[in-house]
Amino acid sequence: MIKLSDYDTRPPKDIDKGEIKDQTEAFAERLGDLHQLLLAEQKHAILVIFQGMDASGKDGAVKKVFRKCTHNNINVYSFKKPTEEEFAHDFLWRVHQRVPAKGNIQVFNRSHYEDVLIQRVHGWIDEERYKKRMNAINAFEDLLQFDNNTLIFKFYLHLSYEQQEKELQERIDEHDKNWKHNPNDWKEREHWSEYMRCYEDVLNQSVLPWTIVPVDERWYRDYIVAKTIVEGMEKLNMQYPRISE
Amino acid sequence: MIKLSDYDTRPPKDIDKGEIKDQTEAFAERLGDLHQLLLAEQKHAILVIFQGMDASGKDGAVKKVFRKCTHNNINVYSFKKPTEEEFAHDFLWRVHQRVPAKGNIQVFNRSHYEDVLIQRVHGWIDEERYKKRMNAINAFEDLLQFDNNTLIFKFYLHLSYEQQEKELQERIDEHDKNWKHNPNDWKEREHWSEYMRCYEDVLNQSVLPWTIVPVDERWYRDYIVAKTIVEGMEKLNMQYPRISE
Repeated sequence: MIKLSDYDTRPPKDIDKGEIKDQTEAFAERLGDLHQLLLAEQKHAILVIFQGMDASGKDGAVKKVFRKCTHNNINVYSFKKPTEEEFAHDFLWRVHQRVPAKGNIQVFNRSHYEDVLIQRVHGWIDEERYKKRMNAINAFEDLLQFDNNTLIFKFYLHLSYEQQEKELQERIDEHDKNWKHNPNDWKEREHWSEYMRCYEDVLNQSVLPWTIVPVDERWYRDYIVAKTIVEGMEKLNMQYPRISE
Repeated sequence: MIKLSDYDTRPPKDIDKGEIKDQTEAFAERLGDLHQLLLAEQKHAILVIFQGMDASGKDGAVKKVFRKCTHNNINVYSFKKPTEEEFAHDFLWRVHQRVPAKGNIQVFNRSHYEDVLIQRVHGWIDEERYKKRMNAINAFEDLLQFDNNTLIFKFYLHLSYEQQEKELQERIDEHDKNWKHNPNDWKEREHWSEYMRCYEDVLNQSVLPWTIVPVDERWYRDYIVAKTIVEGMEKLNMQYPRISE
């Protein structure tokens, strides 16, 4: 039973920042190679899901972790408020269209989990629909795994309430961050404890487990995410295919 | 009147490779910044088209030139043989769906130009349809410019017949390039002079001009492409938006 208050939002105290950064660099390099191998082999698909509160560093994680991957055969999709057409379908309709083909990495910046988080926090769905949606998500993620060899990574970017305030304030104070400022983020912040409760339910009710990433220090976020993806992909034992004679 | 035989496929002789590589690095760094600015400002879209013979280094150009751009708000699409559904539409139908929104860079690895190149070389379209398609392409590119502030870069990767043979042979000889080997590339190579003639017509009949990039040396290719995109984007005079008070 996961309780988020048991999880630190900061790195372990005895850790060497310089050493961690070197390791992150090495993981990023290796991820570049693994991405190439994934494309060459065409046997597996990779789906990477980032969820977290506003200013938890989803964009930054994308930027840092995949920085040695070429732009071929990798795509990042940021889920926003559904369009009218999307709302006129089930909640997985727009998501299904974006899942990766074999040979590709697909990154979701937010995801189908918004439909059991923001929608539940604001009471736009009732508890019965919430439960049905969680079951549907578990079945959907299973489908991607068994029917298209999709390796799925799910990262919950675990940010403290205090750090969020600092990050949001920076968007006001720093000129080149102004474009990220959104007054609505401050309103959503008022629902913090309700969000935490709903995240905990998601973390506990997901069949496919999450990685809970301490993100108050961004360099540690990058390390955990890069390490998790690389170690997961290494297990696929991918090989460059040879020409058949 | 462009004649491809007037254009070198190799770098100028008096050029300093080390210095060029340093400049390419600086252009790539700057492109990373300009990409961020593009996203922040949300006023312009960028479309980058790569065309060239097999093994002319389209994938490599994508990898090197955009290596400092984050994976958010940039997408690379590789056009392949049209699907049955795509064939059942006009040739621009599938292309139109992939053009960039404001704030985004879209890279086309091959493009709508295949429909006036491979299709013409093999006689799958007649000359009348070829001319109509060129007119349609010119109108289409104009539309993207005037109606969505799209800055379009078109690169013809200019490879020599001799260098192509070396590159294709490497795909057979080098184990980690085997996956790129395609016997069909050797067959297409037999139509080399016809391809050159058709490329020349495209270069001469495009309203929006092309950059002809010498690609026999890959480091020079990267330099020309990066420099062209950066200098073009600098002219947009993009600014980080400030918060309205």
